Amino acid sequence: MYTPAQNARLALLLEVAGTPKPGNVDRTRDLPDLHFEHFLAGAVGAQSGLEMAADGAAVGSAFERAIDGMATQRGDNTQFGALLLLVPLVRASRSELSPAVAESVVEETTVADAAGFYRAFDHVDVFVDDPPASMDDLDVRRGSDAVPALFERGLTLYDVMDHSVPGDDVAREWVTGFDRSFLAAHRLANADGPATDRAASVFLSVLAERPDTLVANRHGETVAREVTDRAAELHDSNALGTDPDAVERFADELVERGVNPGTTADIVAAGLFIALEHETLEL
Amino acid sequence: MYTPAQNARLALLLEVAGTPKPGNVDRTRDLPDLHFEHFLAGAVGAQSGLEMAADGAAVGSAFERAIDGMATQRGDNTQFGALLLLVPLVRASRSELSPAVAESVVEETTVADAAGFYRAFDHVDVFVDDPPASMDDLDVRRGSDAVPALFERGLTLYDVMDHSVPGDDVAREWVTGFDRSFLAAHRLANADGPATDRAASVFLSVLAERPDTLVANRHGETVAREVTDRAAELHDSNALGTDPDAVERFADELVERGVNPGTTADIVAAGLFIALEHETLEL
Repeated sequence: MYTPAQNARLALLLEVAGTPKPGNVDRTRDLPDLHFEHFLAGAVGAQSGLEMAADGAAVGSAFERAIDGMATQRGDNTQFGALLLLVPLVRASRSELSPAVAESVVEETTVADAAGFYRAFDHVDVFVDDPPASMDDLDVRRGSDAVPALFERGLTLYDVMDHSVPGDDVAREWVTGFDRSFLAAHRLANADGPATDRAASVFLSVLAERPDTLVANRHGETVAREVTDRAAELHDSNALGTDPDAVERFADELVERGVNPGTTADIVAAGLFIALEHETLEL
Repeated sequence: MYTPAQNARLALLLEVAGTPKPGNVDRTRDLPDLHFEHFLAGAVGAQSGLEMAADGAAVGSAFERAIDGMATQRGDNTQFGALLLLVPLVRASRSELSPAVAESVVEETTVADAAGFYRAFDHVDVFVDDPPASMDDLDVRRGSDAVPALFERGLTLYDVMDHSVPGDDVAREWVTGFDRSFLAAHRLANADGPATDRAASVFLSVLAERPDTLVANRHGETVAREVTDRAAELHDSNALGTDPDAVERFADELVERGVNPGTTADIVAAGLFIALEHETLEL
């Protein structure tokens, strides 16, 4: 039996080791400045933040610590979104890892948690879109400088996530009881083969279902939709089983174009954690 | 900065992620019943034993705990030998990670440490050769059943390692001030490229230098010598730089023959830990 904090790190490792995982760093692909080893180091570095969450610390502080540790390596942002899902899920696993408990964990977050989330941006460069003008003082890229505005407006971390939907499907998990994360866990449990093969197959299914919001923010809705449509074709034809080279080609092409469905990977990591905790996925 | 226990886990992860690493599980190769993900899980599971060593626990207890945690996954023995090197090195890093301090850590081991080492065999199947007849009551495969004989003979863990040389180059590290581990660290620091590429290149250099004792015990001295001679040819001609396909072919061939130079991998993992701790290898 692994502890919840260990299962969270194992989920991060299994996620990046799945291949082919179109567009992202995987067991056989690096990006120009972001290598497989940065993800290994990010998972190791996230330890103390994840342990804080497992010990019952506030979500915002645990998240900030996890990001600070993750960013020890030079690859910079490797698992920011995944940790934004894992920290509340690890916290929920203290009583029960269910959608209802996870929902109550995030609903109970405070303004202090939101401050921890903003401070996390001091440790790492995360790609985010411009906020609406009315939210300019709360642009996450301000990091801890935005904390006074948070307290002035009385926004909890849940409120911040709620404001980020639509346009950020990690935030969407927070306000929908982590529905796609639990669905991914269910699929991981029912898939065949080694955990890393299951991670790759579920990645494709999650990507096939909704345009990846990181891709949409970086490359526009049209590209995000195109990527999802192609993932859906490959998924519907069970290409991983019948024509794996087609998926490999798609993966190479996305890497070449710099199109990285990072949000999809975050959800798969959350699903891996849930499946490991529920022991529906064993190694 | 990672803690010593984190660097030890990172070393295990970087070691298995190096490729091509002829004969062993690596970033692109699995063995029939031993997959990449088992090594990821083994590294995660070793946490508490490594933390015990970092906190100053006795080497034998820390090692037993590390092996118990490593063996949580079903792949069984993934990193037994590597942890037998890492535990005393992590312990040494409490004062100074030098050959002299590492030597004094292992020289100060007791009969109780030897008992911990034997108990570790209760948690995992490790391939070992038959002991000499005079040592039959101390066959490590007896696990904790051999503990009374250890106390009767008054053998410390250092004595046990000393008796295992020649024929076990992990044990040899214990009685030579971890000389090949420190040499591997030096080479890792001076190699080029990402840490996982350095791990692969240093693996080849270590394999080129002395026949792997795990290979010798499983397949005989002749095979072990042949593997080392071929590694030496590839290493001397800088094949990783000039003809990487030749190394890939060698790697595939050894995997097919079931020839796994595990001792070499253990030494590379120890070298990675030293280089990370000394910050001569950064990610």
